[in-house]
Amino acid sequence: MGILRKDYLLDRWVYYATERKKRPMEFKKEVYIKERKVCYFCPGKEHLTPKEIGRVEEKNTWKIRWFPNKFPAVEMKGSAKIKKKNEFLISSDAYGKHEVIAETRNHNKQLADLDVKHIKEILEVYALRIKHLSRLSNIKFISIFKNKGPLAGTSLIHSHTQVAALSQVPELVKEEVEASKKHKRCPYCSILNIEKKSKRKIFENKSIIAFAPFASRFNFEAWIFPKKHKKNITEFDDHELKDLASILKKILLKLKKLNASYNYFLHYAPKGQNLHFHIEITPRFAKWGGFELSTGALINSVMPEEAAKFYRSK
Amino acid sequence: MGILRKDYLLDRWVYYATERKKRPMEFKKEVYIKERKVCYFCPGKEHLTPKEIGRVEEKNTWKIRWFPNKFPAVEMKGSAKIKKKNEFLISSDAYGKHEVIAETRNHNKQLADLDVKHIKEILEVYALRIKHLSRLSNIKFISIFKNKGPLAGTSLIHSHTQVAALSQVPELVKEEVEASKKHKRCPYCSILNIEKKSKRKIFENKSIIAFAPFASRFNFEAWIFPKKHKKNITEFDDHELKDLASILKKILLKLKKLNASYNYFLHYAPKGQNLHFHIEITPRFAKWGGFELSTGALINSVMPEEAAKFYRSK
Repeated sequence: MGILRKDYLLDRWVYYATERKKRPMEFKKEVYIKERKVCYFCPGKEHLTPKEIGRVEEKNTWKIRWFPNKFPAVEMKGSAKIKKKNEFLISSDAYGKHEVIAETRNHNKQLADLDVKHIKEILEVYALRIKHLSRLSNIKFISIFKNKGPLAGTSLIHSHTQVAALSQVPELVKEEVEASKKHKRCPYCSILNIEKKSKRKIFENKSIIAFAPFASRFNFEAWIFPKKHKKNITEFDDHELKDLASILKKILLKLKKLNASYNYFLHYAPKGQNLHFHIEITPRFAKWGGFELSTGALINSVMPEEAAKFYRSK
Repeated sequence: MGILRKDYLLDRWVYYATERKKRPMEFKKEVYIKERKVCYFCPGKEHLTPKEIGRVEEKNTWKIRWFPNKFPAVEMKGSAKIKKKNEFLISSDAYGKHEVIAETRNHNKQLADLDVKHIKEILEVYALRIKHLSRLSNIKFISIFKNKGPLAGTSLIHSHTQVAALSQVPELVKEEVEASKKHKRCPYCSILNIEKKSKRKIFENKSIIAFAPFASRFNFEAWIFPKKHKKNITEFDDHELKDLASILKKILLKLKKLNASYNYFLHYAPKGQNLHFHIEITPRFAKWGGFELSTGALINSVMPEEAAKFYRSK
C-alpha cells in the first residue's frame, strides 16, 4: 500500500509508490554529457567567457572564478517595474543579473571530488555574491543553484554554479516564508529537533544537520540546515562553513556512486523577512509525467527513510 | 531583453529567454521509446492486463478498453483518513483508484492519427470514468492525464490515458478554484474573450477555443476551453465533444510534426466548487534545472505568440 505525505509546512503532497521499489544501485544510469570541442570554463579559455567579475586566487592564478552568464535568463536592461495590461495580463522585463561560478580549474573533477577547504571557499563565494548583488537596487533575491549532469538541465561537464539576481522573491521562497510566519517560533527549528532523532537523519556534525525530508519529492532528496537559526549563509562563521562543506561533500560523494544528475539550491530569508537558511539537494532520476503536472503532487518511489539509510551506509 | 510574465490568475511566473530562440522545427528531437517484446495494451494480450473494467465495442471486439493500472499510485486499501503524528508530520494512505484507458487497438497509431469520431469516443470515456469514479466514497477528484513519448514520463508506445481517482483535490486545481473565487464572475470566461482576439489564439470552432496561454510555462503549451462556462466534460453535449475532439486532433497533429513528447490533463470543478473546465497540453522539450526547482518559476524559450503562430501555420 502506498503512502501519501505532506510537506512539513507547505500544501505540497507526495505519493510514495513503494511497489516500484528498487535498491539504490539500481537507480544508477549510465548517461553522460557529450564532450564539446572547447570548454569555456577551462584554464586558457578565460577570454571566451564574458568579462570576469572575480576570482579566488591560488599560486598566481585562479582557483575559482565567476563571470556573467553568456545566455542570461535575466539582464540589467529595461526595468523591474510590473506592467498590467489588464487584470489578467501582467508582465515585466526579465530584469536582474545572471552569473556563473567556475568552481575548479579541473575539467573532470566534480564538486564531490574537491577537498573540504575548496568546497568551503566555493560556499564563501556564494555568500560574497549574495552580499554584493543584494545591494543592487530593484534586486529582491539572489537565487544560487547548481545543475550537475545531463538529467539536471545542464549540457556542461565543467563543475559550476549559477547565480541569478532577481527582481522578485521566487514564489517557493515566499511560500516558505509565509508558512513559517504561521508559527510562533521558527518551525524549521522544531523540525530539526524531530529529524535529529528520526530514521530520516543522514549526517550531523557540530553545526550542521542533513536529513531526507519527511515528504521528499525526489528520489534520494536531502536537505541541509544549520542547527542554529541562521537566516542566510552570509551569517555563517568559519567553522559553520567548514561543517557545511564537509556534509555537502559526503552527500555528493554518495550521489556520485549512483552517477546521479542532481540540482541543489539555497533558500534563505529575503531582506526584512525570516526563514531558516537551508540547501535542498534534488537528485534527478525520475521524469515528471502528466500526474505531476496535472496535480502538482509528485510520485516518489523511494521513501525518505530508505534514502537516509543509503546515505548513511558505508 | 527577456520578458517575465505572470499566469492569468496564479502567482506563477515565467521567464522568457528569447535569446535562446529557435525555429519550431529545430525543436524536433529524434528520441523514441524502445519496443518491448510484448505490448500489454495490444489485441490478443488482454489476459495480461488486470481485469477489464469496460470497453467501447466495434465489430464484436473492443475499440477502446479500460482496466486497473498494474502499477497503481493509489489503491482502495487502507483509508483516506489523514493522520497527524504532530503538526509537521502529516500523512495518509495513498487511497484511490488508478486505471488505464487503451485508446486504440493499433499499437502504432498515436492519438493524433485517430479520426475525430474515435477521439470523441475517448473523450466520452473520460466523462464516463469521471461520473462513475466520483460516486465512490472518499474520492474527491478524478485526475485524467496522458503521457505521450519518452520525455513525458512513459515507457509505453501504445496510446493510452491514465485515470487516477484521488482522495484529495490536487493542489493545482485547488489553487485555480481559489483564484477564481476572487473574481465576481468566472475569470476564465473573461480571459477567453481576451485571447479570442489575441495573437495567442490557436484554433476556434463553434464551441471550443484553443490558445497559447499568456504565461505559457512549456514550449508550445496550449490550453483548450469550452467557450460556454462548463464545469466539467461531463456537461458537454455531443456537438461540443466533437468540437473538442476536432481541435485536440489538430493540435496533436502539429506536435507530431515535431515528434514532441507531451502530456495533457483535464482540470475541472471539484464537487460543490466552480472552475471553468479546460485541458492543458504541455509539450516536453526542455528539462527543468536548478532555477526552476529553486524558484518555482520556469524559463521558456518560446513566446506563446510564436507557439500560436506555429500551430496556425499550414
